[in-house]
Amino acid sequence: MSGDYQPLPEHKFSFGLWTVGNRGRDPFGDAVRPTLSPCESAALLAEVGAWGVNFHDNDLVPIDATLQERSKIVQDFRQALKQYGIVVPMATVNLFFDPVFRDGAFTANDSDVRGYALEKTKRAMDLGAEFGAKIFVLWGGREGTETDACRRPEEAIKRFRHAVDALCEYNVTQKYDYKFALEAKPNEPRAHLYFPTTASYLALIPSLSHPEMVGVNPEVAHEHMAGLNMHHAVAQAWEAGKLFHIDLNDQAPGKYDQDLRFGSENPKAMFFLVKFLEERGYEGPRHFDAHAYRTEDCQGVKDFARGCMRTYLILKEKANIWNADPEIQALLEEIGERRGANEYFGTTSASADRKSDRATLAKRRLPYERLDQFTMEVLFGVR
Amino acid sequence: MSGDYQPLPEHKFSFGLWTVGNRGRDPFGDAVRPTLSPCESAALLAEVGAWGVNFHDNDLVPIDATLQERSKIVQDFRQALKQYGIVVPMATVNLFFDPVFRDGAFTANDSDVRGYALEKTKRAMDLGAEFGAKIFVLWGGREGTETDACRRPEEAIKRFRHAVDALCEYNVTQKYDYKFALEAKPNEPRAHLYFPTTASYLALIPSLSHPEMVGVNPEVAHEHMAGLNMHHAVAQAWEAGKLFHIDLNDQAPGKYDQDLRFGSENPKAMFFLVKFLEERGYEGPRHFDAHAYRTEDCQGVKDFARGCMRTYLILKEKANIWNADPEIQALLEEIGERRGANEYFGTTSASADRKSDRATLAKRRLPYERLDQFTMEVLFGVR
Amino acid sequence: MSGDYQPLPEHKFSFGLWTVGNRGRDPFGDAVRPTLSPCESAALLAEVGAWGVNFHDNDLVPIDATLQERSKIVQDFRQALKQYGIVVPMATVNLFFDPVFRDGAFTANDSDVRGYALEKTKRAMDLGAEFGAKIFVLWGGREGTETDACRRPEEAIKRFRHAVDALCEYNVTQKYDYKFALEAKPNEPRAHLYFPTTASYLALIPSLSHPEMVGVNPEVAHEHMAGLNMHHAVAQAWEAGKLFHIDLNDQAPGKYDQDLRFGSENPKAMFFLVKFLEERGYEGPRHFDAHAYRTEDCQGVKDFARGCMRTYLILKEKANIWNADPEIQALLEEIGERRGANEYFGTTSASADRKSDRATLAKRRLPYERLDQFTMEVLFGVR
Amino acid sequence: MSGDYQPLPEHKFSFGLWTVGNRGRDPFGDAVRPTLSPCESAALLAEVGAWGVNFHDNDLVPIDATLQERSKIVQDFRQALKQYGIVVPMATVNLFFDPVFRDGAFTANDSDVRGYALEKTKRAMDLGAEFGAKIFVLWGGREGTETDACRRPEEAIKRFRHAVDALCEYNVTQKYDYKFALEAKPNEPRAHLYFPTTASYLALIPSLSHPEMVGVNPEVAHEHMAGLNMHHAVAQAWEAGKLFHIDLNDQAPGKYDQDLRFGSENPKAMFFLVKFLEERGYEGPRHFDAHAYRTEDCQGVKDFARGCMRTYLILKEKANIWNADPEIQALLEEIGERRGANEYFGTTSASADRKSDRATLAKRRLPYERLDQFTMEVLFGVR
Repeated sequence: MSGDYQPLPEHKFSFGLWTVGNRGRDPFGDAVRPTLSPCESAALLAEVGAWGVNFHDNDLVPIDATLQERSKIVQDFRQALKQYGIVVPMATVNLFFDPVFRDGAFTANDSDVRGYALEKTKRAMDLGAEFGAKIFVLWGGREGTETDACRRPEEAIKRFRHAVDALCEYNVTQKYDYKFALEAKPNEPRAHLYFPTTASYLALIPSLSHPEMVGVNPEVAHEHMAGLNMHHAVAQAWEAGKLFHIDLNDQAPGKYDQDLRFGSENPKAMFFLVKFLEERGYEGPRHFDAHAYRTEDCQGVKDFARGCMRTYLILKEKANIWNADPEIQALLEEIGERRGANEYFGTTSASADRKSDRATLAKRRLPYERLDQFTMEVLFGVR
Repeated sequence: MSGDYQPLPEHKFSFGLWTVGNRGRDPFGDAVRPTLSPCESAALLAEVGAWGVNFHDNDLVPIDATLQERSKIVQDFRQALKQYGIVVPMATVNLFFDPVFRDGAFTANDSDVRGYALEKTKRAMDLGAEFGAKIFVLWGGREGTETDACRRPEEAIKRFRHAVDALCEYNVTQKYDYKFALEAKPNEPRAHLYFPTTASYLALIPSLSHPEMVGVNPEVAHEHMAGLNMHHAVAQAWEAGKLFHIDLNDQAPGKYDQDLRFGSENPKAMFFLVKFLEERGYEGPRHFDAHAYRTEDCQGVKDFARGCMRTYLILKEKANIWNADPEIQALLEEIGERRGANEYFGTTSASADRKSDRATLAKRRLPYERLDQFTMEVLFGVR
Repeated sequence: MSGDYQPLPEHKFSFGLWTVGNRGRDPFGDAVRPTLSPCESAALLAEVGAWGVNFHDNDLVPIDATLQERSKIVQDFRQALKQYGIVVPMATVNLFFDPVFRDGAFTANDSDVRGYALEKTKRAMDLGAEFGAKIFVLWGGREGTETDACRRPEEAIKRFRHAVDALCEYNVTQKYDYKFALEAKPNEPRAHLYFPTTASYLALIPSLSHPEMVGVNPEVAHEHMAGLNMHHAVAQAWEAGKLFHIDLNDQAPGKYDQDLRFGSENPKAMFFLVKFLEERGYEGPRHFDAHAYRTEDCQGVKDFARGCMRTYLILKEKANIWNADPEIQALLEEIGERRGANEYFGTTSASADRKSDRATLAKRRLPYERLDQFTMEVLFGVR
Repeated sequence: MSGDYQPLPEHKFSFGLWTVGNRGRDPFGDAVRPTLSPCESAALLAEVGAWGVNFHDNDLVPIDATLQERSKIVQDFRQALKQYGIVVPMATVNLFFDPVFRDGAFTANDSDVRGYALEKTKRAMDLGAEFGAKIFVLWGGREGTETDACRRPEEAIKRFRHAVDALCEYNVTQKYDYKFALEAKPNEPRAHLYFPTTASYLALIPSLSHPEMVGVNPEVAHEHMAGLNMHHAVAQAWEAGKLFHIDLNDQAPGKYDQDLRFGSENPKAMFFLVKFLEERGYEGPRHFDAHAYRTEDCQGVKDFARGCMRTYLILKEKANIWNADPEIQALLEEIGERRGANEYFGTTSASADRKSDRATLAKRRLPYERLDQFTMEVLFGVR
């Protein structure tokens, strides 16, 4: 098995048009790579072995396109997808690039901007539906603030809820059958976003008109930016039945949004994440929301995309090795990792208040260093 | 009003026994201040003008105290509280100091530890109830991990839920009428805690057996450690009807838990927080969960405690000045800050998809720099 | 004095062309403000009361300008500066925007890129000299890496030293009389820059061929990004005689490069910084390397620029108030803050090894909470 | 070689008494492991295969020990070292635990404290010299501040310099032949330390009376806490001839000081570090300044110590594999990584100012994604 990490459709590896099409522009530098048309991106994804492609409305159809231009683009892209055997599992909307959204979209102070954002999103839903997308991601990149003098934060929450409720209504009316996946981020491009973590959205969802229709889209980089544990965030979403989509990449804590190649910064954390997704039965897309270094040319973009998928498959194999390792399994048995919540009450609990009983409990061995070292050695391929 | 920032009972300023009693021990240094008995702490709090005192079970009653010792301590402390006119608004439980909890309390792998943690918490509820506490805080300082090899994170969530459900049952059975307030923290003393942010608990609560009984206790330092915005976290809790308690202090992002004197690190962020609490009608305690610098002696502890309350009252006054400032109010009017979610749809939304219409919307003035500079000048006392 | 915070030439407030000319482009959004020509920027700076303007070569002369175009631009700008009474204290070079520098400039692996970077810098020195600039800043925005596989880091240091030595030679040859000021940054736009902090450059300078010609340009945001203390970094540079320039703005730790309006995020830290600059006799420019929020229009850019200078002057006044406060001065006297390094040996030192002597020393009062609270109250304007 | 990662004396693996002797005390919890005497620690280190042991004065001799007690301890420990074949490469001094140092040691405002700190350090040098230590580490854990109101930072620098100069004099006088290694840390246990990074000390050293006698002791965790790159910091120290010692452990950025098992958090970053040390010819100790999880018992401490050394040897082997990989070497050749600073000027530099020439340069391939993916696959053991 080792050495053969070829992506297959069953792995459900997807990329956004904006990921392989990323031109390397950054706050201090110009674009370094040429524009890739949607059809060229589809070809590239087919070449590297991806299964699906996602897009923001304006990744595919320019914001000022006429209806005729839109039709032509849709037709061409559909043709390309068919030709290359690529599916569209997810669609989303760009509510952050145009200056109109500089103060937010659904949470902007200007009700006309909010109205426009809603209309634009509905049209993005129309577009995604034409390609069979069943997941609709909402990332509120501008839904935040630099100074809290400008808006009462609970008002922003209400406005956002109002928008999602309206979109759910539209989903029902149009019979699109979308699941919405809300994507959190702590900051950048705003100083503070109103829904900074996956949990912020998990907390919002029960208060929506259609909670069953809405889940989350956790992103590695976005949780890591705040120093949080992606694996834990995903677990909370999963346990709540709300893991509708996932954005895979990598990121160092406490920095600008890096969107690094999957597994290239925190391979250990990504190992636990892949292990989780594979073992719990997550059936959605494995979406890589990352981009190549700005030093790369177009060939390098392929290296980058192949690397994301390859590392995922390597880590999947590592998870199997970990699970099959008898010493690791013996340690898990010893530490009681497999004993569940239902066996809540232990027999000695009543008397543990006595010093000697606490001391006895405190002496039970928890060989986590050993377990973690074994895990590292599985990762290093030396077990 | 300027110059008179005297704490009064109506301000509901409270401190934990562990805050004024903090001895200055840290990971690299020994205690520098003598032990303060609970009664001495009550006297100190009365002297500086505080209204309430909170405690972990073992702040008041040592973990190995006999029933007789417990009775004596309770009696003495009740007497002291009466003498000094101090109330007990909140109680909590120490599930982190003793070695028995080194792998967690409610989420420990060892079911005996989980059982003991539950029993210990019930007894802490008994103790708090004897003093009339109506809020019970749960901070899961050990509910986390250094290596994710040791436990499936969704299992930890289930165990924690199970525990809170059991405590709610006990609350009902005993007719204690507590509200539980869950307190999040991203890390320290563990590498990753399972409920890292206030939103993590807001997301959990709807899945509990008694969601109405459970809310949150956001802490400034804990949100700031992860670079998050405390004001926003509090707003989300408030909007959800779940702001049951609050921990006030200060903290620089990306560092160890500092628990600095309130408002001494991020006065601007604390201004917005105080403004929020005062304007929205939060009626709970203003609890200072902070401690004096390790360089201080006992006199310095009083300086510290007075400073917390004084800064709160200064910021409260600043909020009034801000609200009364006609230029600030005119700016708020101009930017539409007071127009609510109900006026969601703007009249031009339908046509904004045209380039010229977007451009028109994008030209509407948002003088946030001006508004923020005015805010700073209110803070500086030069407006 | 309160209420009159008008900028005057003697304050030496300067802005870069790139700061007031910042168009609000960010990683997720398009430009929101129109291009401001250099002459328009000069007019704006004169209107708001600034003293000086700085520029990268390509802020003034486009990278592909012909010699004729360059001449015309220089002539027009010189005329504008004269008309508006604005000076050029500092010049710098853009070695980060063009794709040619995507792997670094002086540290790039490609020796042709290194050669070009050197030539470009020499021409930028020529340009600055034509405007009388006496400080030349070098910010190596691309001198870093995403993967350490690509370059041995000590090789990057050698290449950088080689470049600075060559520029110093050119400075001598051309009799420009520049002082070079090296500007550090921990990350962004690269994952890791080779000289991440001001101290990294202070450590390099003694190894240069012309150490006397080279100092540093600390920037608030760049030190704060890494959670470091700007005041301390500036003090180390000052003590080494190397504070040749300074970049003032504001920034939250652990985030993307925010370049916020001076004093708008950490007013307390900025108070100590202004106090330091004013009291130690720093005579260089007070350069604001910041930009207006992306929500602002052109009018807002003026609000932003005025706010930077106004806050500086407010904090300067606060420093005077702090120094004139008898209670504060009494505390400083008590804690021995004014006793210097020369009085190194205390009289009891010989015997302090005895427990009782240590205990005596440890009991000496250090009322820092009180001192800090007084400082906050000076900042709040309530003392 | 694979599969055999046994530590040998030639690897120069050392541990501090405080590392294997760490009792698991933290800010929120009590000690969980029994006290290990110095002799027991030596036995443990011999058992796991370490080469050396380091100590703070008070790790070995309690601060209040009599001369007789000291003699007995020294004699016993010397005997144990001989018995177990353990050497003492480095000694250091504890200037942070005792309350007397709560405001700093060499930088304290109280000159008596400064004097005592100096005396205590001299005696620690005496002690280390008795065991043949040739490296003396100075970590100024309390040399910092919570409020900058208390001390002028440049005064702290002067005081620190004064102290190091005095210690160098003592070193000469006593003919101890020590090399001093200064160890930086950004924060914890103080809010800000005066020498926050390795570079801060590299910048100080040239201004000392005996610069040749003083170098640095970079620590992984301390650079990582601030999000900095340890590999780069070590390279700067090495290039300056100042890498006198190194502290190996692991740490997530933006958190409390974790001191994790070597390589267990950032294996990729640690790979580059080990590669650097092994290839450049660093001949000093490989000192693991880390400790076992608080969940461990004494057996777990051994697992932890073995894991540190084992991971180092695994990464050393990976470095050899990386260097022997023909595809990796071909990529390095292609990107010109091996072309040095001496070939500074490229031939096309003169004309690169033309757009077409820049474009040509910008098109040269830099396949860093590919190179980095190969690196990850070497780490994963699948190449």
